[in-house]
Amino acid sequence: MNPNDLINWIAANGKLTFEVLGTLAFAISGLIEAARKRLDIVGMAMVTGFTAFGGGTLRDILLDRRPFFWVQNELWLWVILAICALAMIFLRSRHLEVTERATQWPDALGLGIFASGGTYISLHSGMPPLVAVLMGVITAVFGGVLRDVVVNEIPRAFNDHQPYSVVAFLGGWVVVLLDALNVNDVLAIGAGAVVITGLRICAMTFGWRLPTWKV
Amino acid sequence: MNPNDLINWIAANGKLTFEVLGTLAFAISGLIEAARKRLDIVGMAMVTGFTAFGGGTLRDILLDRRPFFWVQNELWLWVILAICALAMIFLRSRHLEVTERATQWPDALGLGIFASGGTYISLHSGMPPLVAVLMGVITAVFGGVLRDVVVNEIPRAFNDHQPYSVVAFLGGWVVVLLDALNVNDVLAIGAGAVVITGLRICAMTFGWRLPTWKV
Amino acid sequence: MNPNDLINWIAANGKLTFEVLGTLAFAISGLIEAARKRLDIVGMAMVTGFTAFGGGTLRDILLDRRPFFWVQNELWLWVILAICALAMIFLRSRHLEVTERATQWPDALGLGIFASGGTYISLHSGMPPLVAVLMGVITAVFGGVLRDVVVNEIPRAFNDHQPYSVVAFLGGWVVVLLDALNVNDVLAIGAGAVVITGLRICAMTFGWRLPTWKV
Repeated sequence: MNPNDLINWIAANGKLTFEVLGTLAFAISGLIEAARKRLDIVGMAMVTGFTAFGGGTLRDILLDRRPFFWVQNELWLWVILAICALAMIFLRSRHLEVTERATQWPDALGLGIFASGGTYISLHSGMPPLVAVLMGVITAVFGGVLRDVVVNEIPRAFNDHQPYSVVAFLGGWVVVLLDALNVNDVLAIGAGAVVITGLRICAMTFGWRLPTWKV
Repeated sequence: MNPNDLINWIAANGKLTFEVLGTLAFAISGLIEAARKRLDIVGMAMVTGFTAFGGGTLRDILLDRRPFFWVQNELWLWVILAICALAMIFLRSRHLEVTERATQWPDALGLGIFASGGTYISLHSGMPPLVAVLMGVITAVFGGVLRDVVVNEIPRAFNDHQPYSVVAFLGGWVVVLLDALNVNDVLAIGAGAVVITGLRICAMTFGWRLPTWKV
Repeated sequence: MNPNDLINWIAANGKLTFEVLGTLAFAISGLIEAARKRLDIVGMAMVTGFTAFGGGTLRDILLDRRPFFWVQNELWLWVILAICALAMIFLRSRHLEVTERATQWPDALGLGIFASGGTYISLHSGMPPLVAVLMGVITAVFGGVLRDVVVNEIPRAFNDHQPYSVVAFLGGWVVVLLDALNVNDVLAIGAGAVVITGLRICAMTFGWRLPTWKV
């Protein structure tokens, strides 16, 4: 095994681990919303699934890219169904807040991985830079937007004044820049993800807020 | 005419009859919702159209399949517009509940036909089994989800504790099983539809409910 | 320069001017809604973008047509972002009503251009006439529908009894008719747009209303 293979192996497995954590965090945020709204098992499975896969699916529809992630990795759908079944049995309302807090960290990972990866995929599907960066934001954020729209709330991403999409937007430009410098994919996506996740964690830690609209 | 042709003729015409009944039932559920929300003629036509064709259209977008049903059968769009015009003239609020009860039976037919057919189409577009079954559910259920989302309600399918999507999900596996056994399409779709419609009618008759979420 | 070139030059530049005005009017209606709902900068940019580009994008997804307008003309996305930034700084609530009234006129232009153009594009993508006309309506109206759905309102287009979509629908048939007579594209789209914009301005001026649903 030469050093390059090793880097790629670590990168691939690290990416997989982070992707799993990120997807689970997104799924759980859907699950919690479903529980709050007292949806039944069907609503829970659907909202959880939308939240986990909605962003990437919308990106792929816009890019006219197939197969979707969840078609190629059918196993994920079984995982989502299993999580919902377990939640029906074990989750109680006193757990909701704790669970939500606990998922903030993997959610920051998911934000980084999906925004950065989405930007890279879009660039290499021939999108111009700003479009690619916005596709990255869509990949990371639209699962949550769909989640909120179907349960009849104004999307949190639109009015919570958290630097969430903004952080994904900024980090997307890191990917664009590194890609323009012909940096390889692992490094470009990785650097973007680190910047985004890092900024997101800073925002949570130091309580950064977006400027308030003075209307 | 040999016996096989005869079976296919009956199947084709039976399928057409059921499809017409199912689509009309879906359309009418959209119409009733539009009337309840006091939408104008434009809103009525749009909500009715979404409810009738939204599920199949979303499935076809996800499968990247064209042309859509309502593009190939433009006549259906005229039918929907005519129904809306007639409803504007003749439908009054005292009819709404009666109409809704009357459409429960064709709606159960629509659920069976569309879920079963959607599963079959997805399988033969190369989807793996679970994805195909979920596409069947989407075909049958998403018109109603769209209807509720655009009129600003939490989708009934997500929180009414009715075995509706669940029944479509179960019946989808019948289609997958029969297809794996190389049963021909008419029989596979037909059997799936009979199982789904039958279970749905049982659920309505005996008042079956989904387990309640204990949050 | 021969006369035909001249006509085309005027048509092209006129079309561009109207398109710019129409898109800006649509964008501003999204911006105003975002301000009313007190969304943050992210929500504002997204709702503004959806309103400006949502209708054409949905049409292109339905027609399986790429690239999208905003992918081919990335500049527009920068314009939208700049408008949002300026609005954050300068727009105050006392401006909202004035701005909304001022954008009614370019909005009528946008309605005409986008519905007429959308119908023409759909016809020449092989859609049957009624489908093409409805695609025109979708092009012009769905940005606004999306805007209202994501901020959790019943779409204005569905219940305000304004002849808005209806006018787009009627004008679409002008395009279909002229195209069937082999009239060239500039003239067909132009005539459709003039009819739609004219009818819309009449509707605003004379206070035309859709018939009320007597449920």
